[in-house]
Amino acid sequence: MNKKIHLTAGPIPGSRKIYEPGKLFNMNVPMREIVLSPTTDERGECQANAPVVVYDTSGPYTDPSYEVDPGKGLPKLREEWIEEREDTAKLARPSSAYSKERSRDASLDGLRFEHANRQPRAALPGRRATQLYYARQEIITAEMEFAAIRENQLIGETREQLAGTPGEGKLPGVITPEFVRQEIAAGRAIIPANVNHPECEPMIIGRNFLVKVNANIGNSPVTSSIAGEVEKAVWAFRWGADTIMDLSTGANIHETREWIIRNSPVPVGTVPLYQALDKVGGDAKRLSWKVFRDTLIEQAEQGVDYFTIHAGLRWSHVPLTIHRVTGIVSRGGAIMANWCASHDRESFLYEHFDDICEILARYDASISLGDGLRPGCIADANDQAQLAELRTLGSLTRRAREHDVQAIVEGPGHVPMQKVEENMRLEEKWCNDAPFYTLGPLVTDVAPGYDHITSAIGGAMIAWHGASMLCYVTRKEHLGLPDREDVKEGVIAFKLAAHAADLAKGHPAAYHRDLAMSKARYEFRWKDQFHLALDPERAEALHDESMPGEGTKRARYCSMCGEGFCSMRANEKLREKMKDK
Amino acid sequence: MNKKIHLTAGPIPGSRKIYEPGKLFNMNVPMREIVLSPTTDERGECQANAPVVVYDTSGPYTDPSYEVDPGKGLPKLREEWIEEREDTAKLARPSSAYSKERSRDASLDGLRFEHANRQPRAALPGRRATQLYYARQEIITAEMEFAAIRENQLIGETREQLAGTPGEGKLPGVITPEFVRQEIAAGRAIIPANVNHPECEPMIIGRNFLVKVNANIGNSPVTSSIAGEVEKAVWAFRWGADTIMDLSTGANIHETREWIIRNSPVPVGTVPLYQALDKVGGDAKRLSWKVFRDTLIEQAEQGVDYFTIHAGLRWSHVPLTIHRVTGIVSRGGAIMANWCASHDRESFLYEHFDDICEILARYDASISLGDGLRPGCIADANDQAQLAELRTLGSLTRRAREHDVQAIVEGPGHVPMQKVEENMRLEEKWCNDAPFYTLGPLVTDVAPGYDHITSAIGGAMIAWHGASMLCYVTRKEHLGLPDREDVKEGVIAFKLAAHAADLAKGHPAAYHRDLAMSKARYEFRWKDQFHLALDPERAEALHDESMPGEGTKRARYCSMCGEGFCSMRANEKLREKMKDK
Repeated sequence: MNKKIHLTAGPIPGSRKIYEPGKLFNMNVPMREIVLSPTTDERGECQANAPVVVYDTSGPYTDPSYEVDPGKGLPKLREEWIEEREDTAKLARPSSAYSKERSRDASLDGLRFEHANRQPRAALPGRRATQLYYARQEIITAEMEFAAIRENQLIGETREQLAGTPGEGKLPGVITPEFVRQEIAAGRAIIPANVNHPECEPMIIGRNFLVKVNANIGNSPVTSSIAGEVEKAVWAFRWGADTIMDLSTGANIHETREWIIRNSPVPVGTVPLYQALDKVGGDAKRLSWKVFRDTLIEQAEQGVDYFTIHAGLRWSHVPLTIHRVTGIVSRGGAIMANWCASHDRESFLYEHFDDICEILARYDASISLGDGLRPGCIADANDQAQLAELRTLGSLTRRAREHDVQAIVEGPGHVPMQKVEENMRLEEKWCNDAPFYTLGPLVTDVAPGYDHITSAIGGAMIAWHGASMLCYVTRKEHLGLPDREDVKEGVIAFKLAAHAADLAKGHPAAYHRDLAMSKARYEFRWKDQFHLALDPERAEALHDESMPGEGTKRARYCSMCGEGFCSMRANEKLREKMKDK
Repeated sequence: MNKKIHLTAGPIPGSRKIYEPGKLFNMNVPMREIVLSPTTDERGECQANAPVVVYDTSGPYTDPSYEVDPGKGLPKLREEWIEEREDTAKLARPSSAYSKERSRDASLDGLRFEHANRQPRAALPGRRATQLYYARQEIITAEMEFAAIRENQLIGETREQLAGTPGEGKLPGVITPEFVRQEIAAGRAIIPANVNHPECEPMIIGRNFLVKVNANIGNSPVTSSIAGEVEKAVWAFRWGADTIMDLSTGANIHETREWIIRNSPVPVGTVPLYQALDKVGGDAKRLSWKVFRDTLIEQAEQGVDYFTIHAGLRWSHVPLTIHRVTGIVSRGGAIMANWCASHDRESFLYEHFDDICEILARYDASISLGDGLRPGCIADANDQAQLAELRTLGSLTRRAREHDVQAIVEGPGHVPMQKVEENMRLEEKWCNDAPFYTLGPLVTDVAPGYDHITSAIGGAMIAWHGASMLCYVTRKEHLGLPDREDVKEGVIAFKLAAHAADLAKGHPAAYHRDLAMSKARYEFRWKDQFHLALDPERAEALHDESMPGEGTKRARYCSMCGEGFCSMRANEKLREKMKDK
């Protein structure tokens, strides 16, 4: 298996990996430093430009000193921290029936990720090993410090000179570990970090932090392989995915997930209902709390950091969907609605919500409260079904917090622009400011093939209004399973939407990067423009389509206007003239 | 020349060209009808789905009965209407010195568009042949009726059943010719339609109409040819460009423009300053009112429908730009600022504004008041320089109206999301509701290679807030001159942004198309989904990447989730079950 996996590694063009040490804990927080060339004035004198440090999701893969070996998995950077807390212990073996069964199946040997010693970790009896528990106890964890350092992008020192720059500046000055703790304690942010995913570089999701982007990967019964999914995951981290969701519904879901988690430096989410359905032969009616519970434990012990669970879809909501134009478009939602209708009773996920929370607290798996009734078209946006479920998600948020389980709330979907903000305002109000995690939203239905754009529009808007994480949508949405290039384009489209929201929210590090880009543009530092771009490869390739070669990177114009019509050049002359006035 | 031009013609997949006759005037207004397949229920019974009629910018090229011949140019559909008004007459020959010079130059014979009889038309002495003049005289023109019929997309009859659908519904019910007239008379809308562009299918730009999209084409000194530019133009109409701007700055600007206008069914805009600069050897200092005036007449007599003129950039504004991060990024703005600085005096465009309006009124060329001081980066957005110029544009709007010249106002540029709406509100207030025509805006600087997306975000938002037309931005922005594929992707990105704004503004025809798409999606009518898409070719191609072949178009699932995990299928089962409840 290992030999079949070919991961893209090495630095992003023009960048180098740097590490910032922690002050409270032993850690090296990775960042990406974009090195800039000097500014040269008309007399040929040079002035250095400070490098720009950006948030880095790419993991060790972009560190040239790291030897990539997918069969070994990533270094377990959190292991020491977790052990030092002394509130968890390793189990003798996986607890779920399914995990045991799979590990005994010799036919899977060729597919399996080989652990030196597969012993999942769980909280000691009576303990809740969650970041929310610690935050409420006023304990700052290593994860909190790590997330705080990442958020600042070393901008702390230059923050003052940016005072008065755009944005309504509701963000705090410097993000401190204590601020991170307070936000988690208040339920306004989470650090998804399962104790069984020690490879994970901690990150924070919340409205007072950088807007995050999730990329969905995973096979389907129609297409994909384990190697392909691991490759796609590493590719997604490289371009900026802050978390990934493994939504596999095809063959060998258990084994695929193990490979992905062991090689993932970002939190991994899943929808455990998909695998549960697979276990009962795809017949929703046969689903039960028993099979779901076993799946949840199976996956939590593998290290899934957050679970989408559609516990807010109640039997009483289902009739509200019958006259919708596109009914229930969430896969999990459709499965649960069918279960309720088949048994004529309340959802077992709703009824067992406290049991679910107890399991999650044991591993510090976070819950992402799924919006099984999200609208699947403009006509169904903000309808009764959607809003009834959102109110229920609010009550479940409060119940999760009683268990010290970190919770976020999922949101739509398809929403016309004039209804986007209402989604955010209702979520804040009904769900007590729990982080909002939206799929787009797509602001029109008529652009299949361009849904990365329709959803980047809605995503940028709702993130500006306060959504904490955006689930990307690729151009394959509604058409098929995304390939490698679709994944990259989707991630970049959402990084730019998230960045636009960070700018609009007044984040100084976001502003800093735009400023550096604009200065490089004005000074014709072409290489710097490429390197500062969200996608340096595409920026350079598109430039080179009409002006290839190294020499053009020193040209003080481009093929768009040519030399004589370049406004930037005209400005140089103008400023020279204005000196004499 | 003619033999080198290869235009893309024939119907858009799944659509047919239809024509709606006028009631007041002799006309056939083209529209595109998307034919849908029937809905088949579980018992195999069929129910027909009414076709969806959409706005059509593609001109005769998509009519299979039309014989394409770029050397002949398009039919002169407006000629009869113009003649019947009896307020214009044909001149013996072009009036501009430059036109005469070019027509005498035998070396250009191979490049020249061959007119049977090149006699430009102009208003009779003392007459103002503009749509604004007619509107104020309470005269409904054929152009007004044509534009009104187009806007409705035959939705009139089904409008009532859409009552109560999304949107804040500030749009009128049915668009009547009288409503068009009122909006033009109030200065809230324009119909750009030069009397020398009789090939143009009239369209209206204004906040109470569908949001329009402009595509820039034109050669640069670095790249492109006449054939290439005409091909690009026809390609842009095909995908939805409501107007094009020919921004050529390279060789043979005059001849290139003639070819483009004669083959353009949409209004053509230019920035005459570019050609004027070319005529003085690229030295801004040598520009003069004389050369500009001759250029304006030259182009107006060719049939340019609207001119971007940077008359609002005053000498006193220039010092406001000196400390900007990216100075003046508008080419026209940079040229004029250099002229002012070189001569230490007020802009000749500002000083001759009344002369400019007198010329424009003679041909019914509209003015697009250029924003020479638009911000070129996030850091410069909504700054003093930009706003000072916008106030001046407001005063020029009022002066243009005194001459019965139709005017629109150009807007930025680079603007972070939190400052987008302010641009619209100030423009409305200062420019007396003149239509706002914006370039994006781009909501971040850091995504070269993806600027069609950064600008579609800002464009959708500002159009929702009231901007009437969006100038597209391609993914090549800041990097090079767009090619054919870049043009298509840019046009589609902006069509979706404009459509999203139409939806958010409550336009019933926009809603109708989304609804038809969503129903087709829910019923697995794959072909209908492709045909209803803004880009049917890409939608089908992306679907077919993982599920090729005709058989898959009857599948009740796609490769994204596969058959067992399809939520749409699950809904079918659910609705069946709910019937018994």
